[in-house]
Amino acid sequence: MKIIAFADGAGEALGVMTGPEHFVALADVAPKLPTSLVAILEMPDGLLHVAAAVEGQVGKRELASVTLKPFLGRANALWALALNFKTHIEETGLTTSREHPHLFLRTAASYVGAGEPILAPHDDVARAFDYEGELAVVIGKGGRHIPYDRALEHVAGYSCLNEGSVREYQHHNRQFGLGKNFEASGSYGPWLVTADEFGDPSTHRVKTRVNGVTRQDAPLDDMLFDVAATISYLSQAYTLRPGDMIAMGTPGALPPAEDDVEGRDLSRQFGTFKTPGLVHMRPGDLVEVEIDGIGILSNPVSGDEPALYRR
Amino acid sequence: MKIIAFADGAGEALGVMTGPEHFVALADVAPKLPTSLVAILEMPDGLLHVAAAVEGQVGKRELASVTLKPFLGRANALWALALNFKTHIEETGLTTSREHPHLFLRTAASYVGAGEPILAPHDDVARAFDYEGELAVVIGKGGRHIPYDRALEHVAGYSCLNEGSVREYQHHNRQFGLGKNFEASGSYGPWLVTADEFGDPSTHRVKTRVNGVTRQDAPLDDMLFDVAATISYLSQAYTLRPGDMIAMGTPGALPPAEDDVEGRDLSRQFGTFKTPGLVHMRPGDLVEVEIDGIGILSNPVSGDEPALYRR
Repeated sequence: MKIIAFADGAGEALGVMTGPEHFVALADVAPKLPTSLVAILEMPDGLLHVAAAVEGQVGKRELASVTLKPFLGRANALWALALNFKTHIEETGLTTSREHPHLFLRTAASYVGAGEPILAPHDDVARAFDYEGELAVVIGKGGRHIPYDRALEHVAGYSCLNEGSVREYQHHNRQFGLGKNFEASGSYGPWLVTADEFGDPSTHRVKTRVNGVTRQDAPLDDMLFDVAATISYLSQAYTLRPGDMIAMGTPGALPPAEDDVEGRDLSRQFGTFKTPGLVHMRPGDLVEVEIDGIGILSNPVSGDEPALYRR
Repeated sequence: MKIIAFADGAGEALGVMTGPEHFVALADVAPKLPTSLVAILEMPDGLLHVAAAVEGQVGKRELASVTLKPFLGRANALWALALNFKTHIEETGLTTSREHPHLFLRTAASYVGAGEPILAPHDDVARAFDYEGELAVVIGKGGRHIPYDRALEHVAGYSCLNEGSVREYQHHNRQFGLGKNFEASGSYGPWLVTADEFGDPSTHRVKTRVNGVTRQDAPLDDMLFDVAATISYLSQAYTLRPGDMIAMGTPGALPPAEDDVEGRDLSRQFGTFKTPGLVHMRPGDLVEVEIDGIGILSNPVSGDEPALYRR
């Protein structure tokens, strides 16, 4: 089952895909279910109620006629992992613990949905604005002190995620802070694929393309800490809640092709770590994160407005 | 004006203090106003509507008869500053940027309200559980690229905050991650004091007491980055939203008195940095954060349950 949050003229609502291009609006077939995905995940067997409501339905709403939104709204926690792919650790040369996942938080305001524009900071503010193609994990059942071998039972589903990062701000101080939290700097979607449909995360691949050129392509089993280990670790500290999301970290850059002038020219890079095959995101780009079994998260990049006081 | 969120048998609601021990329930005098403080802050002149509704009212509800709750619920962002008081930088010996505030995020689940128990991790999980008495700043009016000299216009009010931290987990990796996000490890309250009533933050003091012994006592003008500078910096990256909170950082420990056996015995400390005058929070303790002009945030410390799988 693929669950979307969409906006049309009438506001924001949930839907379920019934084919590659059509969906049913949940309110049309199950008007008594909550209108937020987090509230559905908080219900006992919430996803089963959704599945029962859409069983046998043929969606007549067209995906192309609505705007997709980030389907979690203001969840309790939007976690992300730093330096979790071996190839990304190598390319940065940075150290990370081999015992404990490297975790930080992002705000809801830092994410948009599939198809919505990602905002590149204005040149006056920052220039090293980087894509990070990742697997997003969404918690379905809460829990505390979850053992490794029970952890995947707590997952509602998965999505694609672009953990857009502003490198200059990330290095303003030792905590990443604002560097991972620029307005609309990241995205997730296009939908939540339920765990039963996605299967074992370690058997899939994540790819990131910028203007059609593949810049990242890695198996999800290259992670230092896998989904189950990360869930188990988080639950040592607090009760994981339905709707908590974990962005599982990004792989390293693919080496650039011979004729890839942009990917080979390190003088165009503004970050602390210059990496062959890395290009920054700029206004006018189209960035896609694809995970087989989920689909493609595609976002155009727009330029943020100039740095003028607005209230 | 002092605004509380409270729980009684009938659920959670907002109130306004009308004297040291009494309040009016907002729903009794303004049933059409939103029931969440963030939603009120999102309204144009929301706080003015609250003030008009309680004008001349004599509250009959007793503060002692309800449980105070964290008044922001799931806000967009709960920021906190690391290493922002010169005395705390000195005692840790850690480096921090002198140009940019040192920022990280906490989840709503990491905070309880005044009077509610703070949870010390079970001994099997961690032992270096530390109080951090701080000023909390709550954004009232959103804004972007806010100049320093306009920043305080965006503040709705202030509160006391205990930014409880689990040092072992904070040092698991380079980002603080879970160390700042244990379940119910911190608190804020007892209420939001509106900015007009509190005045210039730099003229106040923050004090932290554990079981009646003063452990922190510092002027709020010892900050490396003051309230206005921090707001201005945050707004470079994203539109500050009504209800965003900023915990302004904690001062260093007071030197222990001659007869303060607990505060002088560094062998009782489990953290990486051992500091005379620091004691960890343990079950049975009472921790108070006091800021003149706001009041006292008081929390008993309870022991978290053993590290057993719960779902």
